[in-house]
Amino acid sequence: MRKWYLETGPDSDVILSTRVRLARNLQNVPFPIRMTPEQRKAVDAQIKDALLGSHAAIAGDFDYLEMQDTSPAQALSMMERHLISPEFAQAKDGALLLMKDESVSIMINEEDHLRIQVMRPGLDLQGAYEMADQLDTLLDERLTYAFDERLGYLTQCPTNLGTGMRASLMLHLPALQREGVMGQLSDTVSKLGLTIRGLYGEGTEPKGAIYQLSNQVTLGISEQAALQNLKSIAMQVIAQERAARQQLNGDLRLTDQVWRSYGLLCTARILTGEEFMQLISNVRLGAALGILTEVTLDEVANLILNAQPGCLTLRVGKNLTPAERDVERASWVREQLAKTET
Amino acid sequence: MRKWYLETGPDSDVILSTRVRLARNLQNVPFPIRMTPEQRKAVDAQIKDALLGSHAAIAGDFDYLEMQDTSPAQALSMMERHLISPEFAQAKDGALLLMKDESVSIMINEEDHLRIQVMRPGLDLQGAYEMADQLDTLLDERLTYAFDERLGYLTQCPTNLGTGMRASLMLHLPALQREGVMGQLSDTVSKLGLTIRGLYGEGTEPKGAIYQLSNQVTLGISEQAALQNLKSIAMQVIAQERAARQQLNGDLRLTDQVWRSYGLLCTARILTGEEFMQLISNVRLGAALGILTEVTLDEVANLILNAQPGCLTLRVGKNLTPAERDVERASWVREQLAKTET
Repeated sequence: MRKWYLETGPDSDVILSTRVRLARNLQNVPFPIRMTPEQRKAVDAQIKDALLGSHAAIAGDFDYLEMQDTSPAQALSMMERHLISPEFAQAKDGALLLMKDESVSIMINEEDHLRIQVMRPGLDLQGAYEMADQLDTLLDERLTYAFDERLGYLTQCPTNLGTGMRASLMLHLPALQREGVMGQLSDTVSKLGLTIRGLYGEGTEPKGAIYQLSNQVTLGISEQAALQNLKSIAMQVIAQERAARQQLNGDLRLTDQVWRSYGLLCTARILTGEEFMQLISNVRLGAALGILTEVTLDEVANLILNAQPGCLTLRVGKNLTPAERDVERASWVREQLAKTET
Repeated sequence: MRKWYLETGPDSDVILSTRVRLARNLQNVPFPIRMTPEQRKAVDAQIKDALLGSHAAIAGDFDYLEMQDTSPAQALSMMERHLISPEFAQAKDGALLLMKDESVSIMINEEDHLRIQVMRPGLDLQGAYEMADQLDTLLDERLTYAFDERLGYLTQCPTNLGTGMRASLMLHLPALQREGVMGQLSDTVSKLGLTIRGLYGEGTEPKGAIYQLSNQVTLGISEQAALQNLKSIAMQVIAQERAARQQLNGDLRLTDQVWRSYGLLCTARILTGEEFMQLISNVRLGAALGILTEVTLDEVANLILNAQPGCLTLRVGKNLTPAERDVERASWVREQLAKTET
């Protein structure tokens, strides 16, 4: 199965991907943090069986992995591809049901017993939610969820109570970042019950200009209302980013910067993660604006996901020092770009 | 005739080119600075006829140009290719006998009545001198030079008295420059009667690391002794530069820098003259060390000579602002490098 992130989705000039995750817990079993090893095993077996033992066709697309069987590089690489959380990668006592195209991952015994997560390229909240809902329904047939009429789905952390749903979008906002309005945008969306934060780097000025916009409210709101709210705000951000890009488009300095970034990615022998993100962000902006056609947006997505330390280490098959990693990153990026050129 | 600078000569890893010029004046005529317009015309006609009217086969390889017929861009471009001096370009009252391959230029009524200049790729003092000498002999048959038994050839500036010969080498010394020893080297060679100075930029740290090494003494020394002295010191500088390069060779940071410079030259949309020189110098070093084979040393020589303002303006055929020139330079360099790649 071709990996989900190699496809391009709606509004992909600005939206890299959509993620929806549902937090669920089993009735009458303590939350993972308080479980005994036996309870942990039992929950794990129960959930595994609920999916893989079902007669639904989709069950055949899943693999089951115990985190204790993964190498540190494998775990890191899964984390980098957003298949698991950093805590889950660290703890190594959970298990994972992973769809072969990596678009669905179900973490067992993370913070909650179940974390059903669905990813889609571009802006596709409805598509991601429907798949999550389908799996949720399937599992619900064979499991008994902890559910309260008043509170909704019960979760370990109160911020997830209610729908247990967190929907998020990965946005590429290089033009808004250049305009210096990200701090202000962050204030605005937080007043609307959303949060926006930089990925791949701290603060409001991450090197790659990639941000995550997600809903915060899960209680007292339906899934559809939460998705609708997120989507309508996302559409406004998209419109702003596009307008800012149009301001930049045709600017020779931008064209120069885009092409130089591409030139450096094609030739550098040493590339730090930070420089890589800066350069690939420029190239992505250039590709979105049609300044260069040498690289497509899905090729950029593949580069961003797979140029990270864990993915690099995994491909080389041995531990790398940071300096070796920068050489390996440069080498891998060159190889990928040489492929796309032909 | 293929231009001389498109060929590679001996020791071209370090020596870009060799230049020998002879200053000569006609007997019983004032130096150009004191000539009347009539005298100027007469001298011009006499010298032109001495070469073009001779039966020597070589005469057919020359064109005659009056500077007043050249556009400012043409004059600038000739200056950049070292065919004429800056003063000669400015004054516009002289004339030029130019060999079709541009390896020989004879300035008429520059500081002296005659400046016979020969250029050769790489280190070829003997070859350049022999050609200059051949032309000098040819002209001497039909002209009467101002010559004093004691002082030798008489010249307007006393620093040229004697042989009237200035021999110079264009050296690429990026490794010695990196070592920070150029100031010291300059002191040493000046004690040996030579001078070394940066080309394409001020001081001892010119961006392209291209230097000119030339003899200073013309009085009380034979041409052959002066050439031998210059050559033996040049050989030492070459040896030092090569040793310094071997120290650098294999250094990943150098390889990275060479390839990045190449990548930027292939993709940039804006290139200042200064940045161009920095980048092409890195590429030249890389080509000399075999780090990259995408560009040869003679292709680099062509780029260096023709990416200068006058040459760019001439090709475009209209006046360019500095900003337009930087765009044109980037565009032309990309075009050239795209050609060499295939």
